[in-house]
Amino acid sequence: MPAISFPSLIIYCHNYHVLPRLTTALALPRHLNLSFFSQSSFGCKAHSTSSSSLCSESSAQPPNARSGRSGSLAGPPVQLDGVQKIDVNPPKGTRDFPPEDMRLRNWLFRNFREVSHLFGFEEVDFPVLESEALFIRKAGEEIRDQLYCFEDRGNRRVALRPELTPSLARLVIQKGKSVPLPLKWFAIGQCWRYERMTRGRRREHYQWNMDIIGIPDVTAEAELISSIITFFKRIGITASDVGFKISSRKVLQEVLRCYSVPENMFSRVCVIIDKLEKIPIDDIKKELKSAELSDVAIEELLQVLSVNSLEKLEEKLGTATEAVTDVKKLFSLAEKYGYSEWIQFDASVVRGLAYYTGIVFEGFDRGGKLRAICGGGRYDSLLSTFGGDDLPACGFGFGDAVIVELLKEKGLVPELSLQVDDIVCSLDPNLQGAASSVATILRDKGQSVDLVLENKPLKWVFKRAARMNAGRLILVGSDEWHRGMVGVKILSSGEQYEVKVDELQ
Amino acid sequence: MPAISFPSLIIYCHNYHVLPRLTTALALPRHLNLSFFSQSSFGCKAHSTSSSSLCSESSAQPPNARSGRSGSLAGPPVQLDGVQKIDVNPPKGTRDFPPEDMRLRNWLFRNFREVSHLFGFEEVDFPVLESEALFIRKAGEEIRDQLYCFEDRGNRRVALRPELTPSLARLVIQKGKSVPLPLKWFAIGQCWRYERMTRGRRREHYQWNMDIIGIPDVTAEAELISSIITFFKRIGITASDVGFKISSRKVLQEVLRCYSVPENMFSRVCVIIDKLEKIPIDDIKKELKSAELSDVAIEELLQVLSVNSLEKLEEKLGTATEAVTDVKKLFSLAEKYGYSEWIQFDASVVRGLAYYTGIVFEGFDRGGKLRAICGGGRYDSLLSTFGGDDLPACGFGFGDAVIVELLKEKGLVPELSLQVDDIVCSLDPNLQGAASSVATILRDKGQSVDLVLENKPLKWVFKRAARMNAGRLILVGSDEWHRGMVGVKILSSGEQYEVKVDELQ
Repeated sequence: MPAISFPSLIIYCHNYHVLPRLTTALALPRHLNLSFFSQSSFGCKAHSTSSSSLCSESSAQPPNARSGRSGSLAGPPVQLDGVQKIDVNPPKGTRDFPPEDMRLRNWLFRNFREVSHLFGFEEVDFPVLESEALFIRKAGEEIRDQLYCFEDRGNRRVALRPELTPSLARLVIQKGKSVPLPLKWFAIGQCWRYERMTRGRRREHYQWNMDIIGIPDVTAEAELISSIITFFKRIGITASDVGFKISSRKVLQEVLRCYSVPENMFSRVCVIIDKLEKIPIDDIKKELKSAELSDVAIEELLQVLSVNSLEKLEEKLGTATEAVTDVKKLFSLAEKYGYSEWIQFDASVVRGLAYYTGIVFEGFDRGGKLRAICGGGRYDSLLSTFGGDDLPACGFGFGDAVIVELLKEKGLVPELSLQVDDIVCSLDPNLQGAASSVATILRDKGQSVDLVLENKPLKWVFKRAARMNAGRLILVGSDEWHRGMVGVKILSSGEQYEVKVDELQ
Repeated sequence: MPAISFPSLIIYCHNYHVLPRLTTALALPRHLNLSFFSQSSFGCKAHSTSSSSLCSESSAQPPNARSGRSGSLAGPPVQLDGVQKIDVNPPKGTRDFPPEDMRLRNWLFRNFREVSHLFGFEEVDFPVLESEALFIRKAGEEIRDQLYCFEDRGNRRVALRPELTPSLARLVIQKGKSVPLPLKWFAIGQCWRYERMTRGRRREHYQWNMDIIGIPDVTAEAELISSIITFFKRIGITASDVGFKISSRKVLQEVLRCYSVPENMFSRVCVIIDKLEKIPIDDIKKELKSAELSDVAIEELLQVLSVNSLEKLEEKLGTATEAVTDVKKLFSLAEKYGYSEWIQFDASVVRGLAYYTGIVFEGFDRGGKLRAICGGGRYDSLLSTFGGDDLPACGFGFGDAVIVELLKEKGLVPELSLQVDDIVCSLDPNLQGAASSVATILRDKGQSVDLVLENKPLKWVFKRAARMNAGRLILVGSDEWHRGMVGVKILSSGEQYEVKVDELQ
């Protein structure tokens, strides 16, 4: 079987060491010279002040310190003998999708879509490149430090979206009165983060979002959680594999109110609390202090976060608070939906995004090995931060990375193979045109056909048919063709027969 | 019906004039100051030397000269009273996809996918952000001048892909021997160009690509053209709407060989010729001269380009040349496929990409109003320009913009409306949970359900049901529910009945 011969690629970062710096620069296309060797783009410098984790990559380094892994975009390509040796890997932290990976992605997305449609949601999308300003919030979120941002050729600050919600909010404001509420929208889009590359984390992932705009009641959150659970069930994940931790940011709000912490500190405090399992408790306390919380308030806050039952929550806050009423109503609805066994109250869940205002939830792997599978919540004030009139809103994001890890762990990744109905092959180079006619007839009838485009021995054709999981092999031979017939072989049974070309189905 | 109230948005570029420059700068998040007001990013400067059309945007201008249209990302957002007024439009040249546009996009993509599967192609994808080096070729292509490129936070030159073929070539080299040939791959991906915004042209579009790797024969091109025609037929486009101009770059190669033009000038000459209808003929001649063509060679070349039949081509080049053999074989195959009426020989077609080496083709609107609908050809030498071993290859790109214009012109845009099977509504706020149970039962049976999440008057519910094109209205009323029943109304006929909850289908 012919195959692509493996080229002896020269990875350019190796060449990089060999060639003197100036020579390399001169070998580059002219317009690249300056930018490649500049270590001080404004955009980058400015950012490294706000994100020390990125300094190691974005700060000035001699070129030979940047060779990195062979697959990284560590330096410019080098032209030798008129041939430009490129890196055959996708840029650091990104993925190609060869057919086998694409089949899995398509299967996942199909399930996202089908569930969204079951729930009566409409699909939307937004540009992957947005104005940076859309994602800049002041609460100290991780997502902001990891913004994959640039200055474009028109000197505008732009960013590859790190999430879909701000774009959705922008579109909702833009649409204004023209859309009747509630809106039930879903999107599946690629999101980017510029993160230090550790533990195999990627810089892009796809995210399924469902959002309900216009419903102030927790009926909306209940519906969203129901749709995620419907998705899990479809792909074979059970309540013993995955659970949902549920809380409300109103719990924290209650505590802050008790201790007279200014309202404008709310999202900042939430973002700090979200780091609880990531950074030492003393650092958390320091950060909370700088957010104008007294020592007593901090202690009370940390105590409340350990509450993990509705009963304890009621004890703590009383029954009359919105926090308690909301959470209780959500749990009561969950019973009616039939997903009580999937959910548990856990006050430590606050989520890392600044804009949540009410219920927050997080899907987690009960095995405890993986990061959060999905997360969401209510964000009733996001529109006004963009200059729009507020509307009650809630939604979730569900990435394509952790779920695949979970499926692998549980042995639930589906076997998805290429499949065609027929493989059509002429037995004589002069009958290539005839084979084309046969393929066309079959395709017009809805059959998927792999047409053999070269003159190949039958052994090769059978091997290809097996690889393509073809149902039938249609052979166009000279004798048969002159009688208006073709040979058909059912590949599963080995059954063979002749059929009139006009009668091919 | 409740609706989103239209906010009184302040477009920031208006504020821009009002506020003194320094004040505005101070109001910005700290890390934005430098980059927003810097007019001299290296990446941009370097580029403006190679693309004069971009100078107007990328060169230094006072801030108030950049206000542009209200929808443009002309300047930084301004923070007033703690509220950040954002531009509600997507970045210049990009699109949002609200539900109605997304339905059309999904319909188009579904047809791309279904046709690709009919032809036995496998779907692949690549990162939308690639190393800039992948797209830098020296032939003076328009696509290079329009590269949507940046310097990332790690000082790497990256670009939003302007086309999919270089990424495909990269992946083919990377896969090496592991994939048996021929490869038949398709992709649907977003592509970007940084173009001066005129005539409503956008900076991004989606492109359907099909590529065959490993087949040296024109059987591959014939198959590709057949798949595009199959697509046209499916969506209602006929041979009287659209035609294909077909030629081979080997025709030009023959002429260049006759006049001893160096081989390394070949792609440059092709790229120049492609501009024939876009720039004055004298400029073309000047450019050809600078590509080492004599006056006689230029005259002969321009003459050959006017050839528009196979007979004349044979007269000109003789029957023995590869150029003639290839084209004749393709036309003969077209007859067997049954698409002769769609195609015509036209030597003036060369396509604008540097890497084509053989057959080139272009789908055009016979009405003569629109730009090329799709285009493709053979590119047998692309892999070696990246340092890989060459493999015979051909493919095409088919954008999502011109085809929609054509469909509109022909009145062929399909009516695609939102549709759900059922709308479920409780008649009593206390029965919201019961309605959730009913929705769950129906969804488990595969019915798509819009669940009413608020307590609404029936009039509102009917209006919503009509907008969602719901088939049935399922009413959960107190009396019925206590008898284990719900009310069902078939919305097309008005028929009403009660049914046991357990028996809902």
